[in-house]
Amino acid sequence: MASIFTKIVKGEIPSYKIAENEHFYAFLDHEPNAKGHTLVVPKREENKLFDLSREEYSGLMDFSYRVAKALEKTIPSKRIGMSVIGLEVPHVHVHLIPLKTMADIQFIQKATFTNEEFVSLAKEISANFN
Amino acid sequence: MASIFTKIVKGEIPSYKIAENEHFYAFLDHEPNAKGHTLVVPKREENKLFDLSREEYSGLMDFSYRVAKALEKTIPSKRIGMSVIGLEVPHVHVHLIPLKTMADIQFIQKATFTNEEFVSLAKEISANFN
Repeated sequence: MASIFTKIVKGEIPSYKIAENEHFYAFLDHEPNAKGHTLVVPKREENKLFDLSREEYSGLMDFSYRVAKALEKTIPSKRIGMSVIGLEVPHVHVHLIPLKTMADIQFIQKATFTNEEFVSLAKEISANFN
Repeated sequence: MASIFTKIVKGEIPSYKIAENEHFYAFLDHEPNAKGHTLVVPKREENKLFDLSREEYSGLMDFSYRVAKALEKTIPSKRIGMSVIGLEVPHVHVHLIPLKTMADIQFIQKATFTNEEFVSLAKEISANFN
């Protein structure tokens, strides 16, 4: 069965898209730890980060670098944190999170935004993506 | 002033080394979240991950991939988690952590090992590094 992220990539489930290319797709986490919390996924479904080929892994990391730069430009933070865990959804996803405190990357809190706020934020970040 | 990681890279502070090359150095975290928790650092001191050039960042990520593969071979886990936070030590460091539960990557617990156990574990992981 297709993962929830595959459904998002295919547009079967809506998402607040930040950027995509042939192989990767970035969108706002709809239950963010902090403002701007973004997920970057390979379009090809793979469970574990280190089961990606070295080439695909490099591509994912490079795409994540560009997304992180867009987040930096858009959202005031101390730095952009990165985390890959994957114990819940078996489809590789890189968390990129604008950090103010350690709690922002501990997955112990959620920030809430309206649909309009998500749409507007995604548009802003997307405009800063190069 | 040199960061604690620069002192480790230079051998001024001892570490349980896993691997190194011209640009990067990997060693066991001496206050690990879980068994095999490893830090990978660029030898060149830089505060933030996304302030690394795209080339140096790619090199760090590729070196981390090889270390993660060695961890996978050495320590039974569900997967290797990766996290870059950096709010405490201003020298880029990639956390690679063999995960059994979410708590292993939340930085809310520490595992303890004797010096002999750390030495033996570092040797085992190092032998699996390609």
